Amino acid sequence: MFDSVTVIGSGRVGSAVAARLRERGVAVGADGGLVLLCVPDDAIQAVATDVAVGPWIAHVSGATSLAALDPHRRRFSLHPLQTFTRARGPEQLDGAWGAVTAGTEEARRAGFWLAETLGLRAFALPDELRTLYHAGAAIASNYLVTLFRASSRLLEQAGAPPEALIPLMRRVIDNGFELTGPIERGDWATVEAHLEAIAEHAPELEPMYRALADLTAEVSAR
Amino acid sequence: MFDSVTVIGSGRVGSAVAARLRERGVAVGADGGLVLLCVPDDAIQAVATDVAVGPWIAHVSGATSLAALDPHRRRFSLHPLQTFTRARGPEQLDGAWGAVTAGTEEARRAGFWLAETLGLRAFALPDELRTLYHAGAAIASNYLVTLFRASSRLLEQAGAPPEALIPLMRRVIDNGFELTGPIERGDWATVEAHLEAIAEHAPELEPMYRALADLTAEVSAR
Repeated sequence: MFDSVTVIGSGRVGSAVAARLRERGVAVGADGGLVLLCVPDDAIQAVATDVAVGPWIAHVSGATSLAALDPHRRRFSLHPLQTFTRARGPEQLDGAWGAVTAGTEEARRAGFWLAETLGLRAFALPDELRTLYHAGAAIASNYLVTLFRASSRLLEQAGAPPEALIPLMRRVIDNGFELTGPIERGDWATVEAHLEAIAEHAPELEPMYRALADLTAEVSAR
Repeated sequence: MFDSVTVIGSGRVGSAVAARLRERGVAVGADGGLVLLCVPDDAIQAVATDVAVGPWIAHVSGATSLAALDPHRRRFSLHPLQTFTRARGPEQLDGAWGAVTAGTEEARRAGFWLAETLGLRAFALPDELRTLYHAGAAIASNYLVTLFRASSRLLEQAGAPPEALIPLMRRVIDNGFELTGPIERGDWATVEAHLEAIAEHAPELEPMYRALADLTAEVSAR
């Protein structure tokens, strides 16, 4: 669909995307048929305004509306649902999904083309629901970090190696997120004992523990 | 150290453990030199009382004190820090860690022998800190399930496939739990937008989101 793409931004996402396009035989350089903005969210609007109207334009932000690409009309967004690091290359895109937001059928086709060219599994995301989607993505990824760091803190205080949590967390995913443990068994005495231990050794974790215990009970009852 | 082990309980843990012992050439049957209780937490004390004093005795519970093994003195506990399913066999133990709690040096040696025979990486856990340790393990595993189900709910409401979160969550682990996203960037406007979307579409998730946002800010600042 596009023989050439202009990638603006060479951060973690921009460099992986540009490398993958080259791998797929798409020219990456100036005057592309698609201008792909891989810039920080708060720079998208300013950069889009600077691009002369004509070619297609897209951004890769999960949180930003299509309106940030005004005044361009041939536009879409493609958000790779993945976390990127400079320590890896374009293979980071493999197996990940990509959210395509588009206002027209032609734009949807362009977005799906880009997703599939990058090696992403594409799905459509309505512009007005992207904040909700992005909140879900942030919970799953950013708060997963917090969950690990919080539980690590408890293990450290118990003299246990935090890295021991890693095979456990991987297996929870491998096993399809099956709920086990005290709340699943209705063992609230153990939950209360946890809360007492947390209050004594790491009281800053108490609100998180309580909120997740309540939600786990609700999830378990469904 | 033990040529024969009596495994009591054939649930998810007991069956994986018995199969692994047989694989390692340890006889599993009556009158073992070690009686290993793989029974529900609330049954440990009663079952231990029924076992005649003489052989070594151990349990595999994360939450239960050694005192539950009274009146036995040659005793320890080994908690495999893993989640088990009947759909898998003894290979579930590979790569996982095991917490050994023991009151004497001899008991510590027995616990480490069992852990290593099962294929676990052993570490010592003081009896008085096991509740704290177990709280950490429950946060990392049970609340990981809740995190996935909560974020899935938001993706579903946005018309996005929840399974799209799985490669993202795996990569967060692969990347060593590096924090990215709005809170890491100090982008509180996006956090507020998430909270508004959650209040509108899934208000039951709001306390969890807020508690984790606060804790993530604290973790990020460290």
